[in-house]
Amino acid sequence: MLALHFDGQTARVRDVADPADFRDSALVRVSLAGICDTDLQLVKGYMGFRGVLGHEFVGTIVDAPMDEPRGRRVVGEINFACESCPVCDAGMQRHCPSRRVLGILNADGALAEYVRIPAANLHTVPDSVPDAAAVFAEPLAAAFEILDQIDIEAGQDCVVLGDGKLGLLVAQVLRNAGAQVRTVGKHSKKLAVLERLGIETVALADWRPQPTSLVVEATGSREGFECAVAAVKPRGTIVLKSTFAERPQIDLAPLVVNEVRVIGSRCGPFPPALRALEAGNVDVASLVSDRLPLRDADEALRIAGAPGAMKILVETA
Amino acid sequence: MLALHFDGQTARVRDVADPADFRDSALVRVSLAGICDTDLQLVKGYMGFRGVLGHEFVGTIVDAPMDEPRGRRVVGEINFACESCPVCDAGMQRHCPSRRVLGILNADGALAEYVRIPAANLHTVPDSVPDAAAVFAEPLAAAFEILDQIDIEAGQDCVVLGDGKLGLLVAQVLRNAGAQVRTVGKHSKKLAVLERLGIETVALADWRPQPTSLVVEATGSREGFECAVAAVKPRGTIVLKSTFAERPQIDLAPLVVNEVRVIGSRCGPFPPALRALEAGNVDVASLVSDRLPLRDADEALRIAGAPGAMKILVETA
Repeated sequence: MLALHFDGQTARVRDVADPADFRDSALVRVSLAGICDTDLQLVKGYMGFRGVLGHEFVGTIVDAPMDEPRGRRVVGEINFACESCPVCDAGMQRHCPSRRVLGILNADGALAEYVRIPAANLHTVPDSVPDAAAVFAEPLAAAFEILDQIDIEAGQDCVVLGDGKLGLLVAQVLRNAGAQVRTVGKHSKKLAVLERLGIETVALADWRPQPTSLVVEATGSREGFECAVAAVKPRGTIVLKSTFAERPQIDLAPLVVNEVRVIGSRCGPFPPALRALEAGNVDVASLVSDRLPLRDADEALRIAGAPGAMKILVETA
Repeated sequence: MLALHFDGQTARVRDVADPADFRDSALVRVSLAGICDTDLQLVKGYMGFRGVLGHEFVGTIVDAPMDEPRGRRVVGEINFACESCPVCDAGMQRHCPSRRVLGILNADGALAEYVRIPAANLHTVPDSVPDAAAVFAEPLAAAFEILDQIDIEAGQDCVVLGDGKLGLLVAQVLRNAGAQVRTVGKHSKKLAVLERLGIETVALADWRPQPTSLVVEATGSREGFECAVAAVKPRGTIVLKSTFAERPQIDLAPLVVNEVRVIGSRCGPFPPALRALEAGNVDVASLVSDRLPLRDADEALRIAGAPGAMKILVETA
C-alpha cells in the first residue's frame, strides 16, 4: 500500500507492506488524514520515530474482531494501551507505560491507505459529520482534555497563547465552556478565524499581559512558558500544551511566590469532541488551508511546515 | 534598640531606631526569633532587601490598637496586606500585590528587640506551647499550606525531596495527614530526626526514583525540580517549595506528556500550625541546632549558613 514513511532521515511517499494484524485490532481503510505539528517534530528526530507517519484520521472498518461492523465510519484514539497493568487498571490507558502511539511511538500511522488500530480505540463518526470535520476529532479531543482537568467557571478570564491549530481549537472549546477567552497570536489570518466567531484576539506585538486566572500555553515555542508565567495571576492556572525538544532556562520562583498551578495536558476524550463536531459548535472548516492526495503527502508535510500554514489534509482514498 | 540589620552589603547587629508606628499595628517585644534559609538568600541579594532581618518570631504585645490585650504572647503572619484591593477582597491577603513582608519586603523584621506588625496578623500562642516551639509557627504554617492546596488520600505515596528544616516539617505534616511519606536527603543527622518519628528516609545517593503520586520539592536547590519530575507518576502532583535566584534549564515535555500537575506553595495558615504545636504531634525541638543571644545574631546567621546546620534560634529578650 502507499504511505508517508519516515526512515529516520527522510519522509517520503512509498509502497510499504500492509499493516500487520495484532490482537483485537481492526483494519481501517483511511479516507482522510491530517498533518499535525507533532509530525513536523517527528521528522526532526522527536521521539526517534521510524515508520508510517500520521495520527489524525477518519476511515471505514474493513476487517475487525467479532462484533465490529464492517463499513462503519470511524476515528481512533492514538494510545494503544496494554490493558493489563496497574495504570490501565486505574483507567489511565492514555498513560500506560508500555503504550504504543499511532504514528508516534512503535506503531505505524494513518498517512497511508490502511491503518491497524485496536478496535477498542475506535469511535463511530455521526452520519452528519463529514470526513473533513471528523479528521479533527483527535486534536479537538486534546482541546477537550482541559475540561477534564480543570473546572471552568462561567465568565472566567482566560488567555490562550498561540494561534496554531491547537490554540484555535482550545480557544473555541473554552469559550463554549463559558470562559471569557482572549487569544494571543502572531498571524492575523489565523486570529481572524476566532474573531469571526466572536472570540477576542490580540497580536503578540500588542499584547500586554494582565493577571489572568487561566492561561493555556499552546505556542509550541520555548518562549511560551515565560509568557504564560507573566500572564497568570496569583493562585491561577497555566495549562501546558506545547512539547518541544529544547530545554529553556526557567525562573521557577514566580510559580512558588504566586502559588501558581501548572498542568500538563496531552491527549483527550473523543466523545465530547465528536459531539461538538456533530453539534457544529466548533469551526474546523476554517482551519483547513490545503488538501493534497496521498501520493503528494511529502509535499503536504513541507507545506504544513511553512510559516502561516494551517491544517493540511491528505486524501488517502 | 538592638537588631540584626542588613545594609545591602553586610548583616550586622547594631542599634537602630525603634519600629515606626503604622495604622492598626501592634508593637511586640520579641522573645525568640528563628533564622530561615530565606534570610541567607536575602543577604546574598534576593529581593533587594535592606533593613532588619527576621520573619520567624514569638513575643508579647506591649502596645496595640484598642482591644488587643497587652502582654498577650503571640506569633505573627508575615504578609502585611492592604485589605482594600480586589485580591484582598477575594480573601487572598497573602497575595496582595502591594503587600509588605516582614523582614523580606519593605518591612523591618523580627531579629530585634521589638517589631511592629499589623494587629490582624497576630495569633495567640496557647499557654502550653513554649517559645522554642512557637517560633516554628511560621515555617510550620508554610508546610500546612500544602494541605490547603491539595487533598491527601489515606496512605497516599509521597516523596519529600530535601531534608532541610522545611522538608522535615513538610514530611511530618504530610505523614500526620495520612500520607505514606518517604524523605530523600543528603544529611544522615537530619534524616535521623524523621526516622525516630517512624518516617521512612533514604539518602540521596541511594535513591532510585519510583513513580510517586505526590512529590514535594523542598531542596532549595536548582537540581530539585528535575529530581521531582523524575519521581512523579503520570497525572501526579509536584508541590514546589524551593525558591532561588537561578534559572535552571528545564525540559517541560515530560510535564505535558505525563500530564503532571505542578503547584507552587509559599506561606500558609497559622491556626493549624499552632494546633499541631499544642497537640505536640510535630517534633520541632529536634530541629534546633543552636541558640545565641541577639548581640551575636550576625554569628547566628553565619552558623545557619554552614553545611548541615539546622534551625538557629536567636534570644532577643
